[in-house]
Amino acid sequence: MSGWQQAVKSLDLAAEAAARARQQQLTKPAGALGTLESLAIRLAGMQGRECPRLERVRIAIFAADQGVAAEGVSAYPQAVTAEMIRNFARGGAAISVAARQLDAELSVWNLGTVVALEPLPGVHSRIIAPQSANLARQPAMTAEQLQQALDTGREAVLQAPAELFIGGEMGIGNTTPATALAAALLQQPVSALVGPGTGLDADGVAHKCRVIEQALARHGDAREPLALLASLGGFEIAALTGAYLSCAQLGIPALVDGFICTLAALLACRLQPGVADWLLFAHHSAEPGYRLVRAALPSAPLLDLGLRLGEGSGAAVAVPLLRMACALHAEMATFAEARVSESST
Amino acid sequence: MSGWQQAVKSLDLAAEAAARARQQQLTKPAGALGTLESLAIRLAGMQGRECPRLERVRIAIFAADQGVAAEGVSAYPQAVTAEMIRNFARGGAAISVAARQLDAELSVWNLGTVVALEPLPGVHSRIIAPQSANLARQPAMTAEQLQQALDTGREAVLQAPAELFIGGEMGIGNTTPATALAAALLQQPVSALVGPGTGLDADGVAHKCRVIEQALARHGDAREPLALLASLGGFEIAALTGAYLSCAQLGIPALVDGFICTLAALLACRLQPGVADWLLFAHHSAEPGYRLVRAALPSAPLLDLGLRLGEGSGAAVAVPLLRMACALHAEMATFAEARVSESST
Repeated sequence: MSGWQQAVKSLDLAAEAAARARQQQLTKPAGALGTLESLAIRLAGMQGRECPRLERVRIAIFAADQGVAAEGVSAYPQAVTAEMIRNFARGGAAISVAARQLDAELSVWNLGTVVALEPLPGVHSRIIAPQSANLARQPAMTAEQLQQALDTGREAVLQAPAELFIGGEMGIGNTTPATALAAALLQQPVSALVGPGTGLDADGVAHKCRVIEQALARHGDAREPLALLASLGGFEIAALTGAYLSCAQLGIPALVDGFICTLAALLACRLQPGVADWLLFAHHSAEPGYRLVRAALPSAPLLDLGLRLGEGSGAAVAVPLLRMACALHAEMATFAEARVSESST
Repeated sequence: MSGWQQAVKSLDLAAEAAARARQQQLTKPAGALGTLESLAIRLAGMQGRECPRLERVRIAIFAADQGVAAEGVSAYPQAVTAEMIRNFARGGAAISVAARQLDAELSVWNLGTVVALEPLPGVHSRIIAPQSANLARQPAMTAEQLQQALDTGREAVLQAPAELFIGGEMGIGNTTPATALAAALLQQPVSALVGPGTGLDADGVAHKCRVIEQALARHGDAREPLALLASLGGFEIAALTGAYLSCAQLGIPALVDGFICTLAALLACRLQPGVADWLLFAHHSAEPGYRLVRAALPSAPLLDLGLRLGEGSGAAVAVPLLRMACALHAEMATFAEARVSESST
């Protein structure tokens, strides 16, 4: 049995019920902490304890180059993927700063870059190929390459225990495979999903739309998630899909970043619907395709700050909200403890 | 010249411009960090340095009882105001937990409670009266009492230097004066603003609406902010107004909480429009009147999490976003530092 077929862990409904009961006794009007209450209750069910904790947060970035970059679908040269991996390792990227701010462990998983990289601290070399194949013209990866990518996602989750997992991605041109996958999975026209990525102008977006339509015409009608991943792929998107599946199998809450991560989360949920129980959504991405991908998933994102960077950065920004939810839940006094009168209604 | 008439400090436009230029050089597509970029730039202008800092955060809660509680406008008994002040002092309230989580200094300013309180750690006794007068039947406070409340707001801001000020409020029944003030200030019908506060049912809301309409009929047409405050008041709302004015005069950024704090901020802006430069808005309150009050102010709130607790809690929840914005701004590498290629567009 392949890794992705292993059963997803069940939530601890007793812990969830205990957390819900606790929220009713805290010194505040019932429901007055809004989403922070439901977050604490959901995390209690995932972690199997009335008062969940989020001290150990692990961020894994999956990086890879895209063959489709040859079609001119990004505002940045392909060399930037490798350059940004160096920037992650040196601590200068947004996610590096955010990880320090959160005291979270950051690891980078290099699945293949066009510019070969020297060994770098915190960067795990799991090279599948220098880049995925050009999805506009041929399948992005073989079945074996897909399995390698899924396995790397699982390895990143297994590497060390965490109370919260965040996946991120880096790969010049990778909103193109993500948009292709979303269009095929949701059976939506490319024009309803395509966007500027890191900064294409209107002509660039129109060209990107045609490239994706060409890929979908080649791909045909298959909607099975693994077939879609192999055909339209992106190694890093497949790794994220494997990571979310593993989180749900191992019982680790995953906080999902923006457009590309949310698309990978949707693929994982299509492989095993129970994955959705283990996902929290961090922020509303400014990339146009995000809205339709998110609408196909059960819960709403926490933040809407116009972020569109990737790297897991939007998920990192949301971590303090989850930690605040846990602290309020665990440390607030009950009406009885504080001898505060309750509502007359 | 009264304290409220002192000139508001000007923003440092050179520091703001330097911060804006810095954002363009950081290793990310321009604009990809959305609101986090504009927050860092605004804070740079307020703090007069290219890289703003938010280590020292001060939270001041203004607490008072309302004479209008006699009309039955709250789901909770009036004794809860004093009970919650004890809960703040003991560390069991939501804002107490949040302040610890943020390593922020919390002070409580007691402007008058029906149940007299013993001395409590961290609670400053600045009693104006056991409660404001019943605004449905007479002016809520005298001109002298209004000045005392404004002065207490100023004292709380002056007490110790801070890189960010958060005001909060506690007072059973105080969405009633806040809604009355909002209706008078915005010339909107009470029915467009009135809501459940801490948890009234539909009949309770209808009764509260009639009480506020009675207060406005008594008050007449005057829209001058200080006349409104004295007539429809709430000592704690007047103190918040004084605090926001003082922040702008002293050049301290203020992060504004939900419905009642935003209404007090609007009053301060009507007294001196330049106050708006010094305000950041934390969250979209679930109290129905919030939407119209916020629409009368220039900038949008950061969060929308269904919070409706008061105490400054929603502002506290937003502090980590501001700190993350400052950290990303100060610590990310530039393209030149990281030797990352820039966009071709």
